[in-house]
Amino acid sequence: MAEEAAVRAQAETVRRLKQDKADADEIAKEVAKLLEMKAQLGTEEGKHKFVLKTPKGTRDFGPKEMAIRERAFKAIISCFKRHGAEVIDTPVFELKETLTGKYGEDSKLIYDLKDQGGELLSLRYDLTVPFARYLAMNKITNIKRYHIAKVYRRDNPAMTRGRYREFYQCDFDIAGQFDPMIPDAECLKIVHEILSDLQLGDFVIKVNDRRILDGMFAVCGVPDSKFRTICSSVDKLDKVPWEEVRSEMVGEKGLSPEAADRIGEYVQLHGGLDVIEQLLQDPKLSQNKVAKEGLGDMKLLFEYLSLFGITGKISFDLSLARGLDYYTGVIFEAVLLQQENEHVEEPVSVGSVAGGGRYDGLVGMFDPKGRKVPCVGVSIGIERIFSILEQRLEASEEKIRTTETQVLVASAQKKLLEERLKLISELWDAGIKAEMLYKKNPKLLNQLQYCEDTGIPLVAIVGEQELKDGVVKLRIVATREEVNVRRESLVEEIRIRTSQC
Amino acid sequence: MAEEAAVRAQAETVRRLKQDKADADEIAKEVAKLLEMKAQLGTEEGKHKFVLKTPKGTRDFGPKEMAIRERAFKAIISCFKRHGAEVIDTPVFELKETLTGKYGEDSKLIYDLKDQGGELLSLRYDLTVPFARYLAMNKITNIKRYHIAKVYRRDNPAMTRGRYREFYQCDFDIAGQFDPMIPDAECLKIVHEILSDLQLGDFVIKVNDRRILDGMFAVCGVPDSKFRTICSSVDKLDKVPWEEVRSEMVGEKGLSPEAADRIGEYVQLHGGLDVIEQLLQDPKLSQNKVAKEGLGDMKLLFEYLSLFGITGKISFDLSLARGLDYYTGVIFEAVLLQQENEHVEEPVSVGSVAGGGRYDGLVGMFDPKGRKVPCVGVSIGIERIFSILEQRLEASEEKIRTTETQVLVASAQKKLLEERLKLISELWDAGIKAEMLYKKNPKLLNQLQYCEDTGIPLVAIVGEQELKDGVVKLRIVATREEVNVRRESLVEEIRIRTSQC
Repeated sequence: MAEEAAVRAQAETVRRLKQDKADADEIAKEVAKLLEMKAQLGTEEGKHKFVLKTPKGTRDFGPKEMAIRERAFKAIISCFKRHGAEVIDTPVFELKETLTGKYGEDSKLIYDLKDQGGELLSLRYDLTVPFARYLAMNKITNIKRYHIAKVYRRDNPAMTRGRYREFYQCDFDIAGQFDPMIPDAECLKIVHEILSDLQLGDFVIKVNDRRILDGMFAVCGVPDSKFRTICSSVDKLDKVPWEEVRSEMVGEKGLSPEAADRIGEYVQLHGGLDVIEQLLQDPKLSQNKVAKEGLGDMKLLFEYLSLFGITGKISFDLSLARGLDYYTGVIFEAVLLQQENEHVEEPVSVGSVAGGGRYDGLVGMFDPKGRKVPCVGVSIGIERIFSILEQRLEASEEKIRTTETQVLVASAQKKLLEERLKLISELWDAGIKAEMLYKKNPKLLNQLQYCEDTGIPLVAIVGEQELKDGVVKLRIVATREEVNVRRESLVEEIRIRTSQC
Repeated sequence: MAEEAAVRAQAETVRRLKQDKADADEIAKEVAKLLEMKAQLGTEEGKHKFVLKTPKGTRDFGPKEMAIRERAFKAIISCFKRHGAEVIDTPVFELKETLTGKYGEDSKLIYDLKDQGGELLSLRYDLTVPFARYLAMNKITNIKRYHIAKVYRRDNPAMTRGRYREFYQCDFDIAGQFDPMIPDAECLKIVHEILSDLQLGDFVIKVNDRRILDGMFAVCGVPDSKFRTICSSVDKLDKVPWEEVRSEMVGEKGLSPEAADRIGEYVQLHGGLDVIEQLLQDPKLSQNKVAKEGLGDMKLLFEYLSLFGITGKISFDLSLARGLDYYTGVIFEAVLLQQENEHVEEPVSVGSVAGGGRYDGLVGMFDPKGRKVPCVGVSIGIERIFSILEQRLEASEEKIRTTETQVLVASAQKKLLEERLKLISELWDAGIKAEMLYKKNPKLLNQLQYCEDTGIPLVAIVGEQELKDGVVKLRIVATREEVNVRRESLVEEIRIRTSQC
């Protein structure tokens, strides 16, 4: 058998190499033709057209965007810390084989590094697989951690909708052998807290379980070998209508129309505890062992969520499938509900802003002895949240400060650069956030204008008279009020006057 | 001419394609041979040896390392903000051509991404070139910003000394047309503040100017074309003795022995204002226009630094050269001085922990019309600082907390999971950092032990009696004291008792 396969592989290789040769001849002809055309056009080699841009699907964050981004991060990190999470960080790239076989059909979107000698590397595709690698490598069986970092996907970018090739993920995961559904419920609580805190408008968190899906596929007559690929089809239901998904199942994936129709009935179901109870009574599903397990746990989960007081935003939804291969239990996804906003003419179409689930087998894939560490986690999709916050800020005309400077050190007359340098140095050393204009003799008007532009609330003005009197003139930008402050009290005065900022 | 070149290129292409075909035949034979060998050996496909590691020159940061890292970042960021900097972020990769021709001999260390169709990309090598690209692309002529992010170099890692292939840089730069040496002096003040604040021990900041170096090379008889390569040789003086550098100059780089010896005399000079004055009187150097300009500015810089009160840690050092091509004026580098430390047996050999300089031409390289934006900036080499802080912490036996959890919600009896869930949810919603064990019926001892292990200062214990009485038993872990707190006062009580943490 092995020999036969080898011979067949060899024959295939030779056939492909022959084809390559034929292609090469074709290419040679094309190249010759192009070179000829170029020669006729004349050469413009000297002028190299340099393209001034960031790579496709990526963007810079300027100071204003960063201020918005840091607001969102602050809300997310404080929630993760409120739940007692530690923080870790891993390299931006992993050995290529660390990522192999973890992402199913999405693997084609992984960025590889060029082979420059040494190891074969890929940019991380998410933070979950590096986390599992980290656990296995360090033999950690019990941790609650968050990780906020950029991940990379060679996807088709849709930047207006907040879909990029380089984007942040904010992940919170709980690893360890615990009693069922307690950590899972906490993950959903976290999503609820963050989305409420960020005031992104109404949202719903869809919940399902891979075991319920698998049981459903089994009782609908899907062959075992087709579970994952049919699952991928179901995953598209949030973007395309059932008819299209059905024809993919039957046409491309060879599922029987009867099985597809049975699935079609189940995936319409969504709701709360009532739907769980209904399915627990379902004559077919209740006979399936994994489905029953999943439904029992789903019931328990809803109990805990009701103690957390958040079932109002939770929907048990049989059409939720999630694309990634590694999920084994509860899965969930938070979507923003389209909202009417009077300020924004065209509301951003957003969709999923958080997702996650249980992956009890992933760490075992890395452990040399296959030891499993059960994990459940959530990932906040921050880019889409940025898009909304950005657009909202633009609409609101709120002026956002991009620095925290408390005071500008200014001078009223010429030849006072040295005095300004001395004073600002004193302020810096006392921990005051201070700036000055990098001019020898700046005009007072320009210095005041700079404060207006950047939102600096105070100006410390040195002048000949003030120096003689041992004072500094402190100007409050908002009111234009000016007071003389003794030099030794200046730091304290600035602190008091900016403490409410 | 152009036609002839095209024909020659075509001939070359055809020759190469023919070679490719020959290679393909060769490969086909090899493949066949290997397949045969494999068939004889029998198949062992199942057993794939997977290597569980991070890529060469990289590392994970666990919770403890992250706690140290965040301490250092906090000191650095608060300094950057104190000086009024905004913050920006750029993608981790750039178009390959953005990085081309910016790093001189170091270019070979750039990581390229694999060509997977689309643009050719490279991982960023520093934050300075992306900053210049950002300025040119957005036509910004005036900004003071910081940027903290990872950069990538395919260098030989020396991880015990804090040299990695993936490492953080913390950059602060001032871009804009200003009066001479004011922003340059601020950059040095920043290095001084950060190194003092982090208490890394004694340090010195070496300062020089590319214009002084160029003038020195000119008067020593180095041909113009050899300035940059001789500069690279001088740059090695902090690691290898003069004799070696001299023989590289003469042997490898073809400099005359006389010129080398003249350089050898200059590069021994270091000190303060006295050395600057001495060189301004130097019969040869004082005749050189650029050197004189550089020396004049160096004198001005020292005046400003003396107003900042930091000349004690500054050394004007003619042997400082810095490797990168893009510097045009002041350059500097901070090195830690080897210190005796009674706790540490083998002190970490560190060397440079910060560096920077003026690069007035870099932005112009990106601008389509070559418009220049003068820039000066500093980069803090945080990895080496981590190594020191890590080693110091290990030696000190200080226990570092990796979470901020204020209270553990615990139960004294069985069957109280629901009550714990209700209480912890109340606490989370009130902004209290709270944890609980993910067990249905955890033992009280285990819950208390968890607090000891992780440093949680308080335990909120629910029990049958407390529930009846409408109270929660609050235990202070350090003193083992227990007080009954009315449920409605619990949040306030926890806040008060943990406010000093």
